[in-house]
Amino acid sequence: MTHPTIALIERRVSANLFDAGHALTNAEIEELVRLATRAPTAFNLQNWRFIALRTPEAKTRLRDLAHGQAKVSQAAVTFIVCGVLPDHADIPRRLSSFIEAGFLPVATASAWQEGARAQYADPQTSRDEAVRSATLGAATLIYAAEAMGFVSCPMVGFDAEGVVREFGLGRKEVPVMLVAVGRAAPGNWPQKPRRALAEVLQIS
Amino acid sequence: MTHPTIALIERRVSANLFDAGHALTNAEIEELVRLATRAPTAFNLQNWRFIALRTPEAKTRLRDLAHGQAKVSQAAVTFIVCGVLPDHADIPRRLSSFIEAGFLPVATASAWQEGARAQYADPQTSRDEAVRSATLGAATLIYAAEAMGFVSCPMVGFDAEGVVREFGLGRKEVPVMLVAVGRAAPGNWPQKPRRALAEVLQIS
Repeated sequence: MTHPTIALIERRVSANLFDAGHALTNAEIEELVRLATRAPTAFNLQNWRFIALRTPEAKTRLRDLAHGQAKVSQAAVTFIVCGVLPDHADIPRRLSSFIEAGFLPVATASAWQEGARAQYADPQTSRDEAVRSATLGAATLIYAAEAMGFVSCPMVGFDAEGVVREFGLGRKEVPVMLVAVGRAAPGNWPQKPRRALAEVLQIS
Repeated sequence: MTHPTIALIERRVSANLFDAGHALTNAEIEELVRLATRAPTAFNLQNWRFIALRTPEAKTRLRDLAHGQAKVSQAAVTFIVCGVLPDHADIPRRLSSFIEAGFLPVATASAWQEGARAQYADPQTSRDEAVRSATLGAATLIYAAEAMGFVSCPMVGFDAEGVVREFGLGRKEVPVMLVAVGRAAPGNWPQKPRRALAEVLQIS
């Protein structure tokens, strides 16, 4: 018997049509983000922030920065998923309870901190990590939404500078993806076609 | 009753210890990547490639470029997940069967192509998309592995230029993440602690 997550991955679509009459409670939004933040991040940095827009006013402000896409407003909530440029100084705090519980030796945590310092000295590598962590969180949010009976749509077509300005992002925060979550309206597309495996997989 | 994917997200760990005696068949590797490529990508670009290393020789070559991390070799397979700098000219081909089936009007596909051309003219935005798509694929690979009874470990600490050279990546391909997949050996850590929701979630 296959695990139900396989069917969930197979059936997920990027929804275009949402039930505009459906709202999510704050508790449901919190549950979505609690699950999203179970995603892995390098050095357990958790260098992300989730801004959940649920009021019509907030969604309209975002929609105006996202080519006017209707789903930004029609979905119950649209998240701005931000990555944060990694700071190696955060590592001891992110791992403290894990060290105290005896799982991770202090020396290993120190080595991780030094590794992170070296790795993120390059600005491109640092930005890549912000994009990667936010995307790992967004992907997990998408599957969590599906598991909770909702549909979702990730979006990258938006004015990033406008989002930074309009929603007061910090200077180390990068808006990486928008994710609309809500109840599907009728008429969504099926999953789009995928490339043949031979085009995208090499086994060595 | 909650969907089993929720428990799967909650229990997933980044494994450090793998059963070095366990191998994956090519069919299992193909199934993992078939599922990974169900992840969403912008404009359905599917701008990714998965290089699965399963021979001891191939894994050793990668391990030498990844700070000698033992799990690169001990896992049954370690994937190099590559993002590809997006090319808007790919869009008609990626959507052709969807257009032919009548789901997507030709005019919409053309508008998407023009949107992608404008969006990816900036090199940083283009690179961001390579990182984002590869990460969406890697995240889905991680959950697919978990659903198939395996454990996984994403890794970002590797010599990217060395990987490009040693594994013959194309000039538009970016090695975004390594993902080790296999059977767990005893002694793995539990999931690392997560930040409080109040630190990472804002509801507006």
